[in-house]
Amino acid sequence: MAKKSRKGAAKAVNGSAPKAVLTDRDKKTLKDLVGLADRIVDDAQKKRDPYLDIPTRALSNVRYNKAKRRIEMGSNKNRRQLFNLSQAKSYMQTVLVASGCKQLIEEGKTTSIRGLYYLLKHTIDGTREETFDDQAECDPVIEDVEVGLNSLREELHVYASNRGNLVGPLTLIDSGDEIDCSRMGSAGYSIPSIVERQVIDFKKCTAKFILHVEKDTVWRRFSEDKFWVKHNCILTHGGGQPPRGVRRMLNRLHNELNLPVYCLLDNDPWGYYIYSVLKQGSINLAYESERMAIPDAKFIGLRSRDFERCGLSPSVKINLNDQDIKRAKQIASYPWFEHKKPWQKEIEQMLANGFKLEVEALISKNISYVTEEYTPQRLADGEWLD
Amino acid sequence: MAKKSRKGAAKAVNGSAPKAVLTDRDKKTLKDLVGLADRIVDDAQKKRDPYLDIPTRALSNVRYNKAKRRIEMGSNKNRRQLFNLSQAKSYMQTVLVASGCKQLIEEGKTTSIRGLYYLLKHTIDGTREETFDDQAECDPVIEDVEVGLNSLREELHVYASNRGNLVGPLTLIDSGDEIDCSRMGSAGYSIPSIVERQVIDFKKCTAKFILHVEKDTVWRRFSEDKFWVKHNCILTHGGGQPPRGVRRMLNRLHNELNLPVYCLLDNDPWGYYIYSVLKQGSINLAYESERMAIPDAKFIGLRSRDFERCGLSPSVKINLNDQDIKRAKQIASYPWFEHKKPWQKEIEQMLANGFKLEVEALISKNISYVTEEYTPQRLADGEWLD
Repeated sequence: MAKKSRKGAAKAVNGSAPKAVLTDRDKKTLKDLVGLADRIVDDAQKKRDPYLDIPTRALSNVRYNKAKRRIEMGSNKNRRQLFNLSQAKSYMQTVLVASGCKQLIEEGKTTSIRGLYYLLKHTIDGTREETFDDQAECDPVIEDVEVGLNSLREELHVYASNRGNLVGPLTLIDSGDEIDCSRMGSAGYSIPSIVERQVIDFKKCTAKFILHVEKDTVWRRFSEDKFWVKHNCILTHGGGQPPRGVRRMLNRLHNELNLPVYCLLDNDPWGYYIYSVLKQGSINLAYESERMAIPDAKFIGLRSRDFERCGLSPSVKINLNDQDIKRAKQIASYPWFEHKKPWQKEIEQMLANGFKLEVEALISKNISYVTEEYTPQRLADGEWLD
Repeated sequence: MAKKSRKGAAKAVNGSAPKAVLTDRDKKTLKDLVGLADRIVDDAQKKRDPYLDIPTRALSNVRYNKAKRRIEMGSNKNRRQLFNLSQAKSYMQTVLVASGCKQLIEEGKTTSIRGLYYLLKHTIDGTREETFDDQAECDPVIEDVEVGLNSLREELHVYASNRGNLVGPLTLIDSGDEIDCSRMGSAGYSIPSIVERQVIDFKKCTAKFILHVEKDTVWRRFSEDKFWVKHNCILTHGGGQPPRGVRRMLNRLHNELNLPVYCLLDNDPWGYYIYSVLKQGSINLAYESERMAIPDAKFIGLRSRDFERCGLSPSVKINLNDQDIKRAKQIASYPWFEHKKPWQKEIEQMLANGFKLEVEALISKNISYVTEEYTPQRLADGEWLD
């Protein structure tokens, strides 16, 4: 009886039988999603008030694991109850997002967070109440389900936007297509949002390391100068703060192919923060760190001392504003930076300089200074921040 | 003597001899750039005040060419003189940008507008004056040089950011790499910023048409559902307002391979505007229309009547704001729309509806409604706006 009810409950949430061939990972995610619904049915049958426990996603519930050198979530949870006026709506939304993800997996389809919002948005029967008033109401619930099930968004078949490209001596299988990333034209291989093993398998790689740069404009300079050929590396960018697909791709390349990761980012708080997220994980999405963070990633520049050292023109200075100064101090006090003297010195010197520098500023030396002198020297000298 | 001086002048601007193998197009652009410098030398030798005539880039100097069905620049020019206090700086900046582009072409390198800014920014000797105070001062000068020489930015070796992807039965050569655009993995072929013939050659194409969608999220739905396989087409997106690379790529595919272009965009003023730019060219960059505009492009949706016709849920409506209403009226009065009754009706109905719709709203029917019903029906019925 209990078993039959469970099946019925799962069907009611969704109404469709699996249509797609499921990967092992899909099956596991699906089992977790159905498990979530099963607990609700169990509660109802045992006349207990249904609830969901969602790990707290806040700075207060984040800690730095020194041994693993990455950010982790603590064990605090928020209980979300159906029979509680202030929680009933978010309870409903959480179950709704879970059922939407179940539908996506069963149909073998993926969608964006915007798509999932539209898929689930409707006026609740017999009321004037919307399931979600706007996207901003839906996005955190997606994160709740991710963290509640310990699944990456991508495993729930929801993706972020594509951003980031890659070029280098790497052959991979992407959705059944064999891709030679050294022969993908001037824009390189476009890194998808979902790069889990069900989508992407590495086939062959002769690269010795990864150079990750902040922006497509810098990437293009390195690509055009064939830096990746001369130095036998993989070259990536993430269009600023790298999206999850890029972070997960770097993590997989680093761990599965043993490739060191070197980051070339702007000499500003934003550049430091990008490095921090790549290395230790992001505070907002701490639960992802296990599969995203690269604790061994190195920061090769730009450094605060490069202005003098490289003899840059004063014209390229960009004055720090109040926001920059505040951010820099915040970053300096991160637990993973606060005991590292070289990092403290680095950030102090930027504050003392009073200006920031973009990687593009090196162009003022000459167009290819960054690819022919700056980066090769730093790599040859093993000169980086850790 | 005159000849020698000219060489000297050209060298002074730049200081380096050509290092790269130049394409025919590069040679022509280089000749135009050197010609610009030569005229200055001539003026100086003839003791005339040097000046540059730059076509005026403003709505007042733009007209709609009904026969060619695209926006064109008029013949108004602004004279920029060296010996005029209010013009001397912009005169210097124009010559400086031209010399920077000459350097790029000679070295066989490309850069972003940000890179060019850094390349040229410096404190003028013996003064505290910067060549450019910020990027905003440099960007319009790049456009001045483009329009002054009737060269596309890409021909001056300056690129915009990459944005936009393509999938479909098309094989092309990109920078020497043969790319089969039907086998590029889940994110497709990343359309580069520079797609001129020196970079990209079409080799083989069996597609019958192009479907251009607004955003990567929609593109991904079509790609995942293999719409391009079932309907034998090329599928592109431009990440919102398509960058020049995407527009030029569509233009070349349309003209060189005779592929009709169908656009699937949001039902809002922004969607109309994207269509307008793809079709007739952009007002700001009217001088590019000849190589960018696709006067035969069709608009297959979303239409203002689709809310009722497709039976969409009221939940997906997004109310028009004042800005939307103002933009919609502006667009309705464009010379290329104002005499087209179907377009007037379309825009009037959106205003009467009082709401806009994103393509993603069709997901509320079902995930693949847009790829399996909406778009195939519109194409089969030949139902579009022109």
